[in-house]
Formats: sequence, structure tokens, C-alpha cells
Amino acid sequence: MRLHHVGVAVRDLDAAIREHEARGLKLAHREVVASQKVEVAFVGEGPWIELLVGTDPQSPVSKFLDTRGPGQHHLAFAVQDIAAELSKEKAAGRAPIDAAPRPGAWGHRVAFLHPRDHGGVLIELVQEPL
Amino acid sequence: MRLHHVGVAVRDLDAAIREHEARGLKLAHREVVASQKVEVAFVGEGPWIELLVGTDPQSPVSKFLDTRGPGQHHLAFAVQDIAAELSKEKAAGRAPIDAAPRPGAWGHRVAFLHPRDHGGVLIELVQEPL
Repeated sequence: MRLHHVGVAVRDLDAAIREHEARGLKLAHREVVASQKVEVAFVGEGPWIELLVGTDPQSPVSKFLDTRGPGQHHLAFAVQDIAAELSKEKAAGRAPIDAAPRPGAWGHRVAFLHPRDHGGVLIELVQEPL
Repeated sequence: MRLHHVGVAVRDLDAAIREHEARGLKLAHREVVASQKVEVAFVGEGPWIELLVGTDPQSPVSKFLDTRGPGQHHLAFAVQDIAAELSKEKAAGRAPIDAAPRPGAWGHRVAFLHPRDHGGVLIELVQEPL
């Protein structure tokens, strides 16, 4: 398991991309993930910073911004076999937010784990496309 | 500028190290930073996860834990010339938390930038030892 990206909730995606480009972290990928009501931009060269903005007030990211304000949102780890990792979580008595992997940005298969089980950190497991 | 580590505030450093080791992220370095009243542990192979615990109730990390609970604390970027980066910050009209670089963990020179200037993210600049 290795760090894949760091998710950061932002209010203005274009402005946040510009700020990161000014630091030398180039835009690598940008995508609307309609199923999650977010637009995301990956900057850097990996591990990436994933900038996230809600596309709808009901988006989990919009609710996070309303409650906590902009800032660090989640940590994502790359795994070889996301289904196996989810099984390990369940075997350890933990209930992941996503019981099964689902499509994420950039062709990834992803699943989120609950912060209550991981020291207050929202964890995303990411399986990259073959 | 590249991602150097992700700082995560924890309540129990030993337990947090064990949890990360169970995920395959080995302990790389552990140190008490007396000047900051923290004990830190870097896990993984870089970019690292830096686990932080306060060693005193007055430590900034202890106050963070009291207010926000455990979770993501800061993002650290490696820079070649930390003094030059701080000068750029000041030239852009931003007042860094640390006006000058100071000694950090692992022989680094470090300086923190204020979350208000960086989209709600506490940023640490890190210059590695030569």
C-alpha cells in the first residue's frame, strides 16, 4: 500500500489549480465525477494532490465545505486488489463507507473507509486501471 | 516543489505506528521535537505519513487534537531553498507562521505557512539536509 493522492476540498477549482501550478505542481487530470457530484483535478506527478469541489449543494464535498471549510479532505492509498482490502476491513470488524468498489475518477476503482476506524482520517482505497 | 509528507495528528503514537505497519507502511524515523512539544513518527518510504502527538497540553498539536480531534494536520512540500520560498511568500503579501526557517524533525529546516493563505491547508516547507 502506498500513498496515491491527498484530497483537498476547495471552493474554486480554477483558482486552486492556478495556485498549485504557481508552486510547480502541474495539472495532470481533470474530471467531473457525476456519480459523486464532484469535479476533481489532480496536480503534481504522483502522489498527486486531488483538488475537489462539489457540483451540487447535496454533494458530500459541498457538505464538508459547509461544515469544515476548505482544507484536507482524505488520504488515498493505491492497492493491488481493492476487493481483497475491503474484505480485510470487514474481517477486522470495520464497516467501510463503500461496501463494494465503485468507479472513481481517472478510471480508478475506489472505496472509502470511515474516519472513525482510521484515526479521524477519511481513507480512500484506489485500484488503478491495468 | 514536491509532496514531502502528510502530517496526521494522533492520540496514541505507538498504536498509530502499528496500524500503519499493518498496512505495509514501515516506521522510517521517530523523534521527539522538544522545541515544538511533539513526538513524530514518519512511516512509509516517501512521501511519508508523519504521525504527530503532543508531548505537552500546550503543544500546538495537543491544541489541534482538543479542538478538531485526530486527523489530517498539514501538508509538507520539499523545497530546494526554503529561505527563497519564504521570501516569495512575503513578497506576495502573505505572512508565514514562521518568518524564518527553523530546525524541524529528521535534520530538516522547516517553516509553516498559514492555512488562511493556502485554501485552509496548513503548509510546511521542508528543506532536506544536504
